[in-house]
Amino acid sequence: MVTESEARDLYASTLHFDGLNICNFSREIFTAWRAGGIDGVSCTCGLWEGFRASIANVVQWKKWFEEHSDLIMQAHTVADIRKAKELGKTAVLLSWQNTAGIEDQLDYLRVFRDLGVRKMQLTYNTQNYSGAGYTEINDSGLTGFGREVVTEMAKLGIVCDLSHVGPKTTRDVIEFAPEGKPPCFSHILPGGMKEHTRNKSDELIKLLGSKGGFVGLSQFGPHMKKGNDSTIDDYVEALEYVIELIGEDLVGIGSDSSEGHGRPSDFMAWCNKDKGYARQLTPWGSQKVVKPLGKLEDRAELGLAMARRGWSEERMKKVLGENWLRYLEKILGS
Amino acid sequence: MVTESEARDLYASTLHFDGLNICNFSREIFTAWRAGGIDGVSCTCGLWEGFRASIANVVQWKKWFEEHSDLIMQAHTVADIRKAKELGKTAVLLSWQNTAGIEDQLDYLRVFRDLGVRKMQLTYNTQNYSGAGYTEINDSGLTGFGREVVTEMAKLGIVCDLSHVGPKTTRDVIEFAPEGKPPCFSHILPGGMKEHTRNKSDELIKLLGSKGGFVGLSQFGPHMKKGNDSTIDDYVEALEYVIELIGEDLVGIGSDSSEGHGRPSDFMAWCNKDKGYARQLTPWGSQKVVKPLGKLEDRAELGLAMARRGWSEERMKKVLGENWLRYLEKILGS
Repeated sequence: MVTESEARDLYASTLHFDGLNICNFSREIFTAWRAGGIDGVSCTCGLWEGFRASIANVVQWKKWFEEHSDLIMQAHTVADIRKAKELGKTAVLLSWQNTAGIEDQLDYLRVFRDLGVRKMQLTYNTQNYSGAGYTEINDSGLTGFGREVVTEMAKLGIVCDLSHVGPKTTRDVIEFAPEGKPPCFSHILPGGMKEHTRNKSDELIKLLGSKGGFVGLSQFGPHMKKGNDSTIDDYVEALEYVIELIGEDLVGIGSDSSEGHGRPSDFMAWCNKDKGYARQLTPWGSQKVVKPLGKLEDRAELGLAMARRGWSEERMKKVLGENWLRYLEKILGS
Repeated sequence: MVTESEARDLYASTLHFDGLNICNFSREIFTAWRAGGIDGVSCTCGLWEGFRASIANVVQWKKWFEEHSDLIMQAHTVADIRKAKELGKTAVLLSWQNTAGIEDQLDYLRVFRDLGVRKMQLTYNTQNYSGAGYTEINDSGLTGFGREVVTEMAKLGIVCDLSHVGPKTTRDVIEFAPEGKPPCFSHILPGGMKEHTRNKSDELIKLLGSKGGFVGLSQFGPHMKKGNDSTIDDYVEALEYVIELIGEDLVGIGSDSSEGHGRPSDFMAWCNKDKGYARQLTPWGSQKVVKPLGKLEDRAELGLAMARRGWSEERMKKVLGENWLRYLEKILGS
């Protein structure tokens, strides 16, 4: 049993990687990461944007890496993430929640890979050239073009993320992905919930796990068992639910933190409309949403909650970061 | 019974509209149209191209309209097509075989409508944001975004063409399209053929007809009953097959002439690869293909063939052009 004081020390020394943030990124957020002991984060830098706007997003990050080099650095590999921890900085792995940024050009995958976008969700909520999002009218599965995208991503060392992808497309990708290059769910909703069931059934989670794929667990009060009354302890319980399904080596954190964005806000409205401007897809952009992990700067609380539930030091280290790193190394190379 | 000499005169005086050409457009083709008595043609000016390349294609046509104003003029309405016939010119209705040109922007429909692109095929062979092409692995039907595209096209007076669209998407669009604004098949393969059955079943043709939609009949030896031995008389027989299904008022010509393009050629290879460069979709880009309507300059032969099969003057006029014009007027307005 780890005491609270031991848990604080343990959290501080442990490498913590968060599989998804979609914050209103700024020095304030970067400072909060440091305060919260968040050593690596996969940051969304593309959602509905096409090629040119996606390039602009990358350029913005490159400027931030220069301007805030005391707090953050770009990660292209797992070694970069470990290096950041050593230096007391937060490593940022650029990622997309859509492949809209490549438009219809397979070759653009290489361009963005070289720029450091090393994790891409195949599609966000609706149909694109590669497959269907989970709110699409019908999910026809991985398309012919999508097969080419998935193959090329594996070759280039880009993580294929299936978080908002429809269930049939998700299954197709898990089955189609090249041996040894399994996809991930970087941020799915906690286990046993309604939306969770719709999008990523326990069976899909088990299938992913059987291929060595990875599950990052999101936090979203309205879809947790106790709704907006859910606590950080309920989040840890949800982690245990997934661990029950696929063991403790393929599970990690994917907080989907949107810190700094109002709810409602223009940003949330943009996220919640097809292509950023067309029909509304979900009502969540303006609903009350409690996120039980709390503020980024208070992330150490997660370590304490794990300790409260009697987690071993080993399990804590794995789920807080080492699992993500082992998985990322498989895809990114070393 | 119309004699051959009467048929020649009749053809010459009849307005002939061809629902699809995808030629290697040049003065040579424009001259052939005039020689062949082709008074109006829907011309493909977009297939895999995105926004900027589609704009460039339109600009090229605007230049051609100026440079070859003795032979061709742009049609925005049916009145323009009748005007061209009076002036001894060929009216060109610009059209797309894909909606790739709008990329992810519904508002671009208006831009291209204003530029004169008044007929658009929802998708070409594979999946796009709106629906599935007929060679796609799975056809999930009209997407949520596709519903918005179809609604907007109807509002803007753009013909929705379903020729290369997958069967489920085709059915969805026919059922979803606003009352009085039915889609068309501008160029489908002749009736009773294997490929025809796969893509546009007799049932789908009847469903389209029941809504007032339109069928333009293509010519493609390898998929006709007698293969590359098919003649222009077989083509007229195929027209009769469709007339049997939906009557003689909703049927016309959609020759899909690709005159001036070699087979094989870089152009055909581009057409036959997903997005113009990815995996090959069909083997037809390099196969021997006899097109029984013959050369554009010999199009009068079609009038003779209709007469040989005992067609009335009224049916000839309808199928050669008046049917297309009546349908186009419903969508384009007057």
